[in-house]
Amino acid sequence: MKPLHAPIYEALMKHAGDNPASFHVPGHQSGQVWRGLRGLMPHRAKDEWTQTFAEIMKLDVTELSSTDDLHHPEASIKEAQRLAAQAYDADATYFLVGGSTSGNLAMLLAVCDPGDLVIVQRNVHKSVINGLRLAGANAVFVTPRSDARTGLAVAPSVEQIEEALRRYPMVKAVFLSNPNYYGLGVELERYADAIHRYGIPLLVDEAHGAHYGHHPELPLSAMQAGADAAVQSTHKTLPALTMGAMLHVQGERLNRERLEQALALVQSSSPSFPIMATLDISRAMITSFGEAMFQSAISHALELRSWLQETGMLIQDAGRASDQEIIRKPDNKVGAESKSSWLRDPLRIVLHDSTGRLSGHQLKKELEERGCWAEMSDSAYVVLLIGAGTSREQMERLKEAVLSIHRHLIQVVAPSDKSLNRQPDYSLHADTAMWRGDLEAIGEPVSFEGGWYRNDPSIRVPVREALGKRAAEMVVPYPPGIPLLYAGEKLTGAHIAQIERLASQGANFQGARDPRMETIAVYID
Amino acid sequence: MKPLHAPIYEALMKHAGDNPASFHVPGHQSGQVWRGLRGLMPHRAKDEWTQTFAEIMKLDVTELSSTDDLHHPEASIKEAQRLAAQAYDADATYFLVGGSTSGNLAMLLAVCDPGDLVIVQRNVHKSVINGLRLAGANAVFVTPRSDARTGLAVAPSVEQIEEALRRYPMVKAVFLSNPNYYGLGVELERYADAIHRYGIPLLVDEAHGAHYGHHPELPLSAMQAGADAAVQSTHKTLPALTMGAMLHVQGERLNRERLEQALALVQSSSPSFPIMATLDISRAMITSFGEAMFQSAISHALELRSWLQETGMLIQDAGRASDQEIIRKPDNKVGAESKSSWLRDPLRIVLHDSTGRLSGHQLKKELEERGCWAEMSDSAYVVLLIGAGTSREQMERLKEAVLSIHRHLIQVVAPSDKSLNRQPDYSLHADTAMWRGDLEAIGEPVSFEGGWYRNDPSIRVPVREALGKRAAEMVVPYPPGIPLLYAGEKLTGAHIAQIERLASQGANFQGARDPRMETIAVYID
Repeated sequence: MKPLHAPIYEALMKHAGDNPASFHVPGHQSGQVWRGLRGLMPHRAKDEWTQTFAEIMKLDVTELSSTDDLHHPEASIKEAQRLAAQAYDADATYFLVGGSTSGNLAMLLAVCDPGDLVIVQRNVHKSVINGLRLAGANAVFVTPRSDARTGLAVAPSVEQIEEALRRYPMVKAVFLSNPNYYGLGVELERYADAIHRYGIPLLVDEAHGAHYGHHPELPLSAMQAGADAAVQSTHKTLPALTMGAMLHVQGERLNRERLEQALALVQSSSPSFPIMATLDISRAMITSFGEAMFQSAISHALELRSWLQETGMLIQDAGRASDQEIIRKPDNKVGAESKSSWLRDPLRIVLHDSTGRLSGHQLKKELEERGCWAEMSDSAYVVLLIGAGTSREQMERLKEAVLSIHRHLIQVVAPSDKSLNRQPDYSLHADTAMWRGDLEAIGEPVSFEGGWYRNDPSIRVPVREALGKRAAEMVVPYPPGIPLLYAGEKLTGAHIAQIERLASQGANFQGARDPRMETIAVYID
Repeated sequence: MKPLHAPIYEALMKHAGDNPASFHVPGHQSGQVWRGLRGLMPHRAKDEWTQTFAEIMKLDVTELSSTDDLHHPEASIKEAQRLAAQAYDADATYFLVGGSTSGNLAMLLAVCDPGDLVIVQRNVHKSVINGLRLAGANAVFVTPRSDARTGLAVAPSVEQIEEALRRYPMVKAVFLSNPNYYGLGVELERYADAIHRYGIPLLVDEAHGAHYGHHPELPLSAMQAGADAAVQSTHKTLPALTMGAMLHVQGERLNRERLEQALALVQSSSPSFPIMATLDISRAMITSFGEAMFQSAISHALELRSWLQETGMLIQDAGRASDQEIIRKPDNKVGAESKSSWLRDPLRIVLHDSTGRLSGHQLKKELEERGCWAEMSDSAYVVLLIGAGTSREQMERLKEAVLSIHRHLIQVVAPSDKSLNRQPDYSLHADTAMWRGDLEAIGEPVSFEGGWYRNDPSIRVPVREALGKRAAEMVVPYPPGIPLLYAGEKLTGAHIAQIERLASQGANFQGARDPRMETIAVYID
């Protein structure tokens, strides 16, 4: 096992250990502020605040000659990023302190001049659309294929991407998001090969896959599959503080100087050292522990899945995707076809109520009331993450919670109820079911030129009166933060039904003026 | 004294105290990751990492129903922002997790459509220019007035701003930066009055003044002076973690819906709760302690200034700005005129070597070697911050360091040396001296339309061969991060002399391809 070596963390500890007299920002002065104000402060607050923040504040320094500068790394940050590039099979790695959001913005700003066209998977995080808006680019959205059993949108097929490339050979890049929020993904190698034949880069939002490629039971990472740039939310599945992420690049298809300028543009000029230190530590653990780092988590998840099945819980793991995807048949009806083989993140548990009584949101709430906090819910599913920090005791609590909800469901569901143990039609339940055939697989280019903010005259109307109008705001249910509608897009009946279903189930619409989404802003055309 | 009440911090502590089983991001799982991997980890690392991060990681959670969502606050964040608006005399306050950078970007994106014109003080932080680039706006840069004694650029006069408004009545906003990095500023009330007569908003980058307005010896804050929006780096002078900042707004001149959209666009969709909690705590301390919070720091700074003068140290505080400003006389020579009355931040000490032997960068290094870490240096000055966390012991260490450097200087400076105790011409030494009269006070509009990235053909040339060419890159010595040249601007002799002087003194050029700035990219016109 390689020794643990984390240069940023070590430089910060060394500086703190030298007992410096700090006459610089930040204003907490290595956490000494509460000591300085001890005469004013109630004991309880002083002790509690000191205990909570003192250790982290020692590392929370500014750019000093003993530390380094993220926007011009020459010392510990340079070394840490070099080690990260090695660990993640990249040519170069950039540490991000603004989350995957900043990486997605920077990738698009690095690739697109105003009016440039890119092919973009439709179910992307809103930061990708924001990148298109800031860049003033145009996008061809490609509808993803959905899993037949769960109804979950995954990614467009290689054939769809190839068709889009044939129709729009002038595109500057292809942007994919992989894996999705539910841990389902595709094999990116074939995509990379197809896209590289056009001489353009494949950009990947790999926010949910920061752990990929580091264990035989985990899918390959985007870098390993040949992507030109990939953004990973290190904080999501590795032990980094929230907003800690990485951008990996390889090859020559991306202008790296421009990318670096874009990163300096979208990120704080005072980046957080504690966040960078945990990126460094996360990488050090990957380097040192390798696959052993994920072994207990994978075992925990496997054991839970077996338990759910063997005990016949009414709450089941829907994550076992089928080998089929939903297709549109020649007669325009929707069917399933054995074609795809989704890759799955073993560390995501996707729970659902097999009786169909509890929506995902309700199931999440039931789990919370039993002390188990999930990552997110939609109308059908609850996503839970298992990690290296998940203990046996926590897994037992989760089982107890599921068992308790199961018993409650048994009581309310009559034994004669047909829904009991019936395989529900998840494709109708899932939030993403709308993608099945409602929208053309390869859309017309959507323009984001002319300024990020559209101030054409608009009015607010009740959602059900918006049929056929162009949305004047993005509609983004959160989580998972995937835009359902982009500003400028025409509302269909499927859009309206979807918004109403989500609103009635208590979803939050991030960034919308009316977070309950009873009304929507539309352009007066 | 009002009781300490910090709703975000309290909600986080309550959640952590409920001993939740966490099946969500972040991947450190409340810091339990190292316990989970204890079999793999060397004891030393595990104990050290746990000690450093465990407490903060308990608060580092995602958007949960027990916490809140920064981009759609409905619970603790909403309450904390409401209390902040009260404490900072604003109508509304937005917590920022991407530093003042994100606030400056958002203010400009909220005000400017592509091609819109704004009046901008020339010596602004690079994030302001980046905001113009992202918005595709055009800017009329107004050269700031400089202090006659120190040569430090402060701000344009009200009369300059009024003249710019008369010339360009179609502007959408005026953007000022106040106070500057050295703690010098202007009375913003008159500016606000003049600007409001044109019905447009005054936007202020108040990054260095998060503590303003909370003690009789501190200048008024931008909000108190009537600005429409102001960004404060709470982390710089109040006890918030790095990247924690606030955006305050008042009145109706700014489209708040658009501003909120811009904030959601530039900031992470997974904002850091520990950062938000320390913003909340900083505000709680202001509310509860009031001016008492700054009393010991102000006394420390005052005492140090007296000591420097009374003991006749060769290292002196240059922060005592004169009441004169540098002007260009009718005969085109440069002189001084008694006219202005700069406001000063009493908590910034601006040290310099009165013998002129040590540059600011060298003096900073000498202080560091004696354990005293300053905020920044330029060719003449070193800026030190005194805060509530500064102890008497630290002030003594600073005095000892100054005394030691003084003794060293005494030894190398012959008693007959004319430079000893001579009042140096700071206006020639200071980095910002170039602003004296080298550039027209009110420039021609500079266009940032057509995409943030200019890819007109350019070449790299040695800096001294760039006279008369248009820069193809921004030149930003850091600190203080104020752009010397904007991409697209023509290089003058003053620019070249300035770049060479800074490079020879070891300044860092952030974002430049050649950080030593021996060469510069220029457009082939």
